[in-house]
Amino acid sequence: MKKTDVAIVGGSAAGLMAAVTLKKRHPEKEVAVIRDVTKTPVPCGIPYIYGTLGAVDKDIIPDNKFLEMGIEIIQQKVVDINRKQKNIIFSNDNTLTYDKLILGTGSKPMVPPMPGVDLGNVFTISKDPIALQQLYTALEAAKKVIVIGGGFIGVEMAEQIAKMGNNADNSIDVTIVEMLPHCLMLACEEEFCLQAEDELRQMGINLLTNSQVKALEGDGKVSSVKLADGKSLPTDLVIIGIGAIANIDLAVKMGLDADPRGGITVNEFMQTSDPDIYAAGDCASKFSLITGKPSGIRLASVACTEGMIAASNIYQTTRKTMGALGAFATKIGNRSIAAAGLTTSAATREEIEVIVGEATTPNRHPGGLPGCVMDMKLKLLFRKDTGVVVGGHVSGSESAADMVNIIAVAIQAGLNAEQLATMQYATHPLLTASPLSYHVMLAAENAALQLG
Amino acid sequence: MKKTDVAIVGGSAAGLMAAVTLKKRHPEKEVAVIRDVTKTPVPCGIPYIYGTLGAVDKDIIPDNKFLEMGIEIIQQKVVDINRKQKNIIFSNDNTLTYDKLILGTGSKPMVPPMPGVDLGNVFTISKDPIALQQLYTALEAAKKVIVIGGGFIGVEMAEQIAKMGNNADNSIDVTIVEMLPHCLMLACEEEFCLQAEDELRQMGINLLTNSQVKALEGDGKVSSVKLADGKSLPTDLVIIGIGAIANIDLAVKMGLDADPRGGITVNEFMQTSDPDIYAAGDCASKFSLITGKPSGIRLASVACTEGMIAASNIYQTTRKTMGALGAFATKIGNRSIAAAGLTTSAATREEIEVIVGEATTPNRHPGGLPGCVMDMKLKLLFRKDTGVVVGGHVSGSESAADMVNIIAVAIQAGLNAEQLATMQYATHPLLTASPLSYHVMLAAENAALQLG
Repeated sequence: MKKTDVAIVGGSAAGLMAAVTLKKRHPEKEVAVIRDVTKTPVPCGIPYIYGTLGAVDKDIIPDNKFLEMGIEIIQQKVVDINRKQKNIIFSNDNTLTYDKLILGTGSKPMVPPMPGVDLGNVFTISKDPIALQQLYTALEAAKKVIVIGGGFIGVEMAEQIAKMGNNADNSIDVTIVEMLPHCLMLACEEEFCLQAEDELRQMGINLLTNSQVKALEGDGKVSSVKLADGKSLPTDLVIIGIGAIANIDLAVKMGLDADPRGGITVNEFMQTSDPDIYAAGDCASKFSLITGKPSGIRLASVACTEGMIAASNIYQTTRKTMGALGAFATKIGNRSIAAAGLTTSAATREEIEVIVGEATTPNRHPGGLPGCVMDMKLKLLFRKDTGVVVGGHVSGSESAADMVNIIAVAIQAGLNAEQLATMQYATHPLLTASPLSYHVMLAAENAALQLG
Repeated sequence: MKKTDVAIVGGSAAGLMAAVTLKKRHPEKEVAVIRDVTKTPVPCGIPYIYGTLGAVDKDIIPDNKFLEMGIEIIQQKVVDINRKQKNIIFSNDNTLTYDKLILGTGSKPMVPPMPGVDLGNVFTISKDPIALQQLYTALEAAKKVIVIGGGFIGVEMAEQIAKMGNNADNSIDVTIVEMLPHCLMLACEEEFCLQAEDELRQMGINLLTNSQVKALEGDGKVSSVKLADGKSLPTDLVIIGIGAIANIDLAVKMGLDADPRGGITVNEFMQTSDPDIYAAGDCASKFSLITGKPSGIRLASVACTEGMIAASNIYQTTRKTMGALGAFATKIGNRSIAAAGLTTSAATREEIEVIVGEATTPNRHPGGLPGCVMDMKLKLLFRKDTGVVVGGHVSGSESAADMVNIIAVAIQAGLNAEQLATMQYATHPLLTASPLSYHVMLAAENAALQLG
């Protein structure tokens, strides 16, 4: 009977980060990562398979780096885990005995309960390279594609499918159907959602916002999408990208505390109701770093941090989660958009009164220098009661993600407007705004003025 | 007799930032900025006049934004200030009475005490548009140029003069003479200095490091540079870029405490020995944020922060300086390099024992995506005794400056390796490294492992 010190079920962000963290801290321990797919795709890179990269194989996390660290990668489907015997049972009846276990079983795409979701050419975004290839092949034959859901995954898929059509000189008509008034509304400030929508429209993508899908229709294969307002949109292919739910199937089977909305219940050490078992990533329960309330944020960045924390605590309890922050970035057309923490509308919902400090200024100085985005904008949200930063939103150049990470660190360190306004920042004509108006300093100073 | 509430002597970074800060906080107060130049060049943009921008006029901070805020801009040379009468005397005998005064008189280029510095076609880098145009005209006629000093200004000038030659299809032979073993050594890690030197060589620039200039020779006009080792280099034009010293002439004349090395003595509120007079920027004394010792750091970013602090304290004491950090960025050829805080060699000099955490990883994921710099590197320095971050160094893409500002904030907030390792960061395939290896997280985790 095969055995290992630490078994990790799931080979994506949380699982791989946990394995690396363990091997760095305890190189003498055996670590096995178990996955049911042949290869692990770069999860956030999946949309780019279809346009920019042009092949599923170009979006794979190579195993060699992990194998070189002495991590074992087992390709098997786990059917059950006997917690008493500490025994993992695979679909081929083989077993693996563990001393400690980390569950990184991820999430499952949400599928709305409506007629027609089982029709042919209806896809969700899976993390299985075989399924991703099936979608690739189907898209190559499609002329009209409808993406249901205008969140990050929906918008990025739509953008890349439009690009796929252009690459093949065989333009694909792409439509996004979104329930809310704008795309990306849950993560981004409304003004930046509008900018993203402009970029999508410039790429020829049709946007149907404030629109709900009622049914998918077709004979074997989907041929039209029926909206709640009665309209029917002809289509060759449908992608459902409306979110993900924690994959708790295995945890429930094992008798661990878990609930379908929140995920596998974990404490702040990422430990489940069984002290030898940890969970991390999309499958694990979360709370918001800002409000302390249960959180539905499922991101690779959160999964990595949780995987690191879980692995760090397995042999000695050293690290606690601060809660999920929600730090995002994307690039739509020529515009990069990034966010960390609360949006103004989320702050209103949470009844947190905020002061907003803004800075819109060219990201080069003088503005005539190459790479200048004249209207690069940073928006910072500070609690009115404490002055502490709770949100940051950037729209502009490709350094938007790194800039928002200045704010992500500031949120996690509990810094306030006064501190961010009076700190010193590196600037350079070819790389940033002028030191007179570096975005973080200027937006914080504008908020500090209002906070008094 | 003309009067104003606040007079600011000096119209560059510190002065303009002070004026803006005052007008935002006290719109009812009269603020006058006095400068002795016709226009204010973007100080850090000066090298780019000669190559990328192609004209002095393209590197000017427009006055209109300041005028629209109600700031008065006076173009006059100040010859003296009578502190008792609170009276500024201009070279045309006009006067201006003030209630409060801010000195932002900046710095003067350092000129080494050696023969020949007064020869024709020997230039320092001034902030006067007329002098910058004279240099432009002289460069247009030059075939061989020697830059003395391989710090930021020397390296950037050399790079842009090479570019100026290429733009005009009239290649200019450019040589940098640097005393230290490498260019940029005072600010950057040695490995990044080597990268910068590679970029310079690829642009055809000659580098003479470990080389000291003994004299400039010529008949009226410079025609050769004599080195300490006896070699003589023929040249048409020499640029001296070896640093700057505080311009304390006016302050000394006024009887304020000042010394030629440190600058105008200020307390942590940026207040001089006269409580109604503040000083900020290159002319003001500084201490290091990290060591607390007197500091010679003179940067536009420090000047802006000091200008803001001085102006905030004029009518009520609200803000203290934390000391000068030293946060730099530059782009040489295709490589962007940024730094904040201590280098490893500075740490050794200061007898601060540090643990270094490194991360070298592609800045896109997967690496096949456009804009990928495969060897983007972040190096973090943490105090061994406290684990607190005291330095950050980035080499790679154009987001280097924003990435180093994550570290600049972390240094100024006193964060440690454990905190930076377990924080969440926004990542995206088209914009950053993978969440498994985002530079800040990975470098901090690698240091946390050593700190134990």
